[in-house]
Amino acid sequence: KMTETLYSESLKVKYKCQDAEDRFVVIKVTVELQTTTSPLHRKDLLVRLTDDKDPFFLFNLCLGEEDFQSLKTQQGLLVDFSAFPQRFIALLQQSHSEESRESPKFLLQFVLEESSSFSTSNSGCGILKVIETNPFKHLTHLSLNFLHGNDSDVKKYLASCLKTTLDHKAWLENKLSETEHDLGQKLEKTRQ
Amino acid sequence: KMTETLYSESLKVKYKCQDAEDRFVVIKVTVELQTTTSPLHRKDLLVRLTDDKDPFFLFNLCLGEEDFQSLKTQQGLLVDFSAFPQRFIALLQQSHSEESRESPKFLLQFVLEESSSFSTSNSGCGILKVIETNPFKHLTHLSLNFLHGNDSDVKKYLASCLKTTLDHKAWLENKLSETEHDLGQKLEKTRQ
Repeated sequence: KMTETLYSESLKVKYKCQDAEDRFVVIKVTVELQTTTSPLHRKDLLVRLTDDKDPFFLFNLCLGEEDFQSLKTQQGLLVDFSAFPQRFIALLQQSHSEESRESPKFLLQFVLEESSSFSTSNSGCGILKVIETNPFKHLTHLSLNFLHGNDSDVKKYLASCLKTTLDHKAWLENKLSETEHDLGQKLEKTRQ
Repeated sequence: KMTETLYSESLKVKYKCQDAEDRFVVIKVTVELQTTTSPLHRKDLLVRLTDDKDPFFLFNLCLGEEDFQSLKTQQGLLVDFSAFPQRFIALLQQSHSEESRESPKFLLQFVLEESSSFSTSNSGCGILKVIETNPFKHLTHLSLNFLHGNDSDVKKYLASCLKTTLDHKAWLENKLSETEHDLGQKLEKTRQ
């Protein structure tokens, strides 16, 4: 199994859920391509939605080639699986570039669907939409279904966040002591 | 609910499990006193075993007053619940102070008991023992039963680790830029 990160960016998203008013939130969207070579050679597109301010917010989409075929038919896409990730990323980038505009042409929308059969906050799924607004109407360019990560998913995700953060912390500690040492020496020199 | 941390230290522990040889590992032992006021006033002693190198290693013990009574009878303890935490911590400190000795008088031992009914690595329980070795025999001063945290426990534990680490990282970033700025200014001054 090999995982390549194609895109990872914090994006402004219009957040819709049943019980509250629409609001804008910042969600980190990570797009990865996972290549499995054994037992069969296959590629999966993994998309992960997370929130740097809420460690328990985790929505996953795993899109295999077969899943993509039904998505393609369903939503009338004209690209094939291998070209899809870059087209999807281009849409994310376009909406990212228009975030500060008052009426952006492209907008990301996340619709939270609380599933009625579960009552815990961990359940539910969500739909990420890329919507173009023209003078005439809203056009949905893409609509992707995400599942909320279960405890085990969130556990693994947090462990990897913790590892990255600890590495960065160690680097900073090192950098701080180096900086203090370097500048201390320079100060010493100029004083002499 | 109020939680007071009484002790938190990384300790050298003799680790015993069925399938491998005994080895020494470093386990962080955290002792907390949790006071609940509603619906009833009660105190629980929480002990947590974690491993800074393995984010999924988490063993918990929650000892209420009733649990303590049976522990007291079982193990012939002479202190009451309110005095127990400090006595337990004193034992931990004693073994900590003797860690570097070749033949320490007090030793911590952790015995991992894989429960046979589960096959995942998440199951099982473990026993933490404080053992005194005298010329005549091994004396078990205390033996506490821990349960491995489930996915939800580990998830919550990792979220709190991540928060602490992110706070520390932010502090370091701030400190680094301050240090660079301060020393840069001092350098400027001495050069003039």
